Amino acid sequence: MAEQGQRRHGYREGLGGELLAEFLGTFVLILLGCASVAVAVAGLPGSGRQSDAFGPANWLIIAFGWGFAVVFGVYVAGGVSGAHINPAVTLAFAVRRAFPWRKVVPYVFAQLVGAFVAAALVFATYSWAIDAFNAKAGLSRNQSLDTFAIFATFPAKYFAGSWWGPLLDQVVGTAVLVLLIFALIDARNTAPAANLGPFLIGMAVTAIGLTFGPNAGYAINPARDLGPRLWTFLTGWGDIALPGSYQWFSWYFWIPIVGPLVGAVIGAVVYDLFIGHVVAARTAPEPGRTSDQPPPAE
Amino acid sequence: MAEQGQRRHGYREGLGGELLAEFLGTFVLILLGCASVAVAVAGLPGSGRQSDAFGPANWLIIAFGWGFAVVFGVYVAGGVSGAHINPAVTLAFAVRRAFPWRKVVPYVFAQLVGAFVAAALVFATYSWAIDAFNAKAGLSRNQSLDTFAIFATFPAKYFAGSWWGPLLDQVVGTAVLVLLIFALIDARNTAPAANLGPFLIGMAVTAIGLTFGPNAGYAINPARDLGPRLWTFLTGWGDIALPGSYQWFSWYFWIPIVGPLVGAVIGAVVYDLFIGHVVAARTAPEPGRTSDQPPPAE
Amino acid sequence: MAEQGQRRHGYREGLGGELLAEFLGTFVLILLGCASVAVAVAGLPGSGRQSDAFGPANWLIIAFGWGFAVVFGVYVAGGVSGAHINPAVTLAFAVRRAFPWRKVVPYVFAQLVGAFVAAALVFATYSWAIDAFNAKAGLSRNQSLDTFAIFATFPAKYFAGSWWGPLLDQVVGTAVLVLLIFALIDARNTAPAANLGPFLIGMAVTAIGLTFGPNAGYAINPARDLGPRLWTFLTGWGDIALPGSYQWFSWYFWIPIVGPLVGAVIGAVVYDLFIGHVVAARTAPEPGRTSDQPPPAE
Amino acid sequence: MAEQGQRRHGYREGLGGELLAEFLGTFVLILLGCASVAVAVAGLPGSGRQSDAFGPANWLIIAFGWGFAVVFGVYVAGGVSGAHINPAVTLAFAVRRAFPWRKVVPYVFAQLVGAFVAAALVFATYSWAIDAFNAKAGLSRNQSLDTFAIFATFPAKYFAGSWWGPLLDQVVGTAVLVLLIFALIDARNTAPAANLGPFLIGMAVTAIGLTFGPNAGYAINPARDLGPRLWTFLTGWGDIALPGSYQWFSWYFWIPIVGPLVGAVIGAVVYDLFIGHVVAARTAPEPGRTSDQPPPAE
Repeated sequence: MAEQGQRRHGYREGLGGELLAEFLGTFVLILLGCASVAVAVAGLPGSGRQSDAFGPANWLIIAFGWGFAVVFGVYVAGGVSGAHINPAVTLAFAVRRAFPWRKVVPYVFAQLVGAFVAAALVFATYSWAIDAFNAKAGLSRNQSLDTFAIFATFPAKYFAGSWWGPLLDQVVGTAVLVLLIFALIDARNTAPAANLGPFLIGMAVTAIGLTFGPNAGYAINPARDLGPRLWTFLTGWGDIALPGSYQWFSWYFWIPIVGPLVGAVIGAVVYDLFIGHVVAARTAPEPGRTSDQPPPAE
Repeated sequence: MAEQGQRRHGYREGLGGELLAEFLGTFVLILLGCASVAVAVAGLPGSGRQSDAFGPANWLIIAFGWGFAVVFGVYVAGGVSGAHINPAVTLAFAVRRAFPWRKVVPYVFAQLVGAFVAAALVFATYSWAIDAFNAKAGLSRNQSLDTFAIFATFPAKYFAGSWWGPLLDQVVGTAVLVLLIFALIDARNTAPAANLGPFLIGMAVTAIGLTFGPNAGYAINPARDLGPRLWTFLTGWGDIALPGSYQWFSWYFWIPIVGPLVGAVIGAVVYDLFIGHVVAARTAPEPGRTSDQPPPAE
Repeated sequence: MAEQGQRRHGYREGLGGELLAEFLGTFVLILLGCASVAVAVAGLPGSGRQSDAFGPANWLIIAFGWGFAVVFGVYVAGGVSGAHINPAVTLAFAVRRAFPWRKVVPYVFAQLVGAFVAAALVFATYSWAIDAFNAKAGLSRNQSLDTFAIFATFPAKYFAGSWWGPLLDQVVGTAVLVLLIFALIDARNTAPAANLGPFLIGMAVTAIGLTFGPNAGYAINPARDLGPRLWTFLTGWGDIALPGSYQWFSWYFWIPIVGPLVGAVIGAVVYDLFIGHVVAARTAPEPGRTSDQPPPAE
Repeated sequence: MAEQGQRRHGYREGLGGELLAEFLGTFVLILLGCASVAVAVAGLPGSGRQSDAFGPANWLIIAFGWGFAVVFGVYVAGGVSGAHINPAVTLAFAVRRAFPWRKVVPYVFAQLVGAFVAAALVFATYSWAIDAFNAKAGLSRNQSLDTFAIFATFPAKYFAGSWWGPLLDQVVGTAVLVLLIFALIDARNTAPAANLGPFLIGMAVTAIGLTFGPNAGYAINPARDLGPRLWTFLTGWGDIALPGSYQWFSWYFWIPIVGPLVGAVIGAVVYDLFIGHVVAARTAPEPGRTSDQPPPAE
């Protein structure tokens, strides 16, 4: 690229461009994802009946909503930054795919800002629906877990007081996510071609929503949870947002941060132990190459 | 193509063929899209209960119905006209992708006519269901917002009187649409290959339906709304159709025209600011080329 | 292929192999398609409540069930016979795509036999569920339109007595089907590559189910309707099956035969008038070629 | 590969690597698949009402849950072992696609272990939800067929006492599965390219769930049923798990083992009789090759 000369200096190049892409990719992710929960909770004419907000038909809206949110977040950012749009994925790439550690903090920061700004736009667009929902229920925002759920996650009631349950759920969900991402971008395996990886990565998130969603809202992404959570803290949801306390749980907010980070590393290591090392050995081109660390897949 | 000689004169060539394609693509879009709402509102045996017409399971029918309507509208017209099938998309291509301005008005006209004719065919096919629905509800057409909803859009009740709410919704929804289209056809990014762009563009519309649909019916396309709205005005829906007035709103019709046009330009500019300029700089082949205006992606 | 010599004589070659493929492709279509209605009507634990049999969530099961039935019917037969698996499609290919007329009757026969045999297997597998459903409802088979609906189609009640309504519905639905098939296999347009045409053709049928399904059961395929209808006539559904008479309609059976055949030709002609001729003119390789009849797309 | 020398000895090579892949692929299959039933039965806030656990909207969650489970199980293991992740599929490949018989028992063992371990992790993650569900219903585990259904299969009530009904269902379902797999990987037919076979194979399982699911839970895979069944037997579900006895049935457990094995062979033979031999004859490259046994498709 040296021949392209001085012309290319500016914000668009190198890490600057990648951070713009991570910002916009995460923005698209949260804009569509949170808005799909807004539809289920407060948008549809029949909503407002609390017991139905997360019934099975609404759950399909949410699972496909978040799945497509990932599909399109990855298509938006994929060609520039690799479209991590998730600090846990960034960590997994740093640990097992030689993603430069010096980029980890900037990437995570861009993801968080993208998530925060997207939450603000979801709030702006759905503030009429949210206020109507709460007025009907006779609740103020800081009493309304249902409208908080549009933005960030909380554990199911059956976990009452047990942080181990939702933490395990977040570890498992994110481990599955990273394991599947590693499979879907591994050209030594059966990675989809024709640039359809982003479609299938999004459908993996739909799958996780259909399988590990209701336990704790399947954050499986610290930026996805913390960014909108900060927004709701600043706009009236109070303790429900931070530190994440309600009748059956206290101080929840750290679980969708720690769980995904731990799960992502586990998922990456499991993929490499069971598959990565095998395909590396099979496709190793020259004797001098160590097969212990698979080559970067992106 | 000069060597193909005089033989190719006729309606099929150049702009003529493109307008036929825009007409037929938009016709398919509206035929399938409006009919999916007809199924939800009046077609299924259990329909006729007003509160359920836009419940979550019906909403999945509508969101996938309109999404597939776009998929197939684009597959029908894609190879000839680029399949804008939406004046807002045509405007965005003119503003940011060097689509010739002289073609904008003809394209928009073909889209509007296609939408109008398709609405007529939906009406013909579903007139039995519509009349049975209204007879059961004891309403005349100009009192029946539910059957009007088969054809064109209206704002949710929680926007009562506020034109700013649904306008913002249309701006946001269309900005997302155009941003995603620009990403999905940008060969410098991760655009899907194997001619699967139309599938993913349609799924983007499904995603918008699942995320920004219930606020104001996600027209996100002036022809999609105005064409069928004109049909309903001529066939008995009266003020509900034009100017779009009912209990909680007056003169709605301009919002799904202005909102999408504004949103489309915003979406195009945002894509280029965050991604287009970056990938242009990365892939710039020669120093003399300005990277400020990304090359036409189609 | 002349060099492969005498070895290849036998049932597997030429028309013989194609008819086996049409048989098996249509068999798969009807086996999965009818069974999806069986799930909705009589299979699921909560079924048996008549008003819900075709509610919106069940309708999604049916629409995706029939859509996938087409996807896999086409994948099974595609490489051998072109996978028409529908007499209306065979007719359209004969009229507008130079499919040999001498093969039309054998193809249609193979399709009908495949549909009939598949209906028998659906009946065998679901006879326990069907009998339990009818026992619960206190109906004999020849009184049970719901269980008949597993196999073949009937018009919605709002068409009471009007054969023009469901006929128009069948014409429109099949015209859309053939128009979309012609677009999806037209390499001069934006036909999906990577052998994904069958997936999108099936999704077109899902789309038709979500948009023109409830009017009259979207047969859009004479073999799909007549084959299973004959089976039900032989196994106790009586007049409901043939000639298709019930409270609000008499002699329905000919509509899902005639409607699709007419619609298919209309869809083919519309595609060629609006798109086929245009892309033919654009891609015409030599001056001597007439562009009036597009080349066979398969 | 001889030139890669001694370096490649170890667990990763040959059968060892393939068994790791079968283990992990089946693990992903069961982890996602069983968890999707957990969502429907006990995870969603509105669950706990027994009659709704398998209503149509929940059924869509289950059908797409299991379908995606297959999609991603196959993407994980596909490049190493061919991703059978099902003893019935392994048997079919041995009988009709020259898969080495000596590998059959190791493959099946790896699949069973993967399924068992995945069931344990689903149990760990959902134990709070399961216990809350049973507490609410006032049932102990060995009385709770609904929570057992998270892990393994049982026949519908309408089969009361008839082992022939669910056995036929398992034979038909698995025959369809193998027939479709054989079509989808047969490069002489219209097999999807761009490594999208796994996506379509998973959607075939979604299709089977939407069409033959409710009869007997569509195990269509002996490891999928027996592995989790063993887990539930060890953790308190008693006779419901093994031998599979409840009010309306006794000793069910062998049906989802024998049915799939028989069905898989039938599906493979039907594919080859109707399609395999035909495409083999058409594509036979040299006269000396026998077309009776199609070449291995993987």
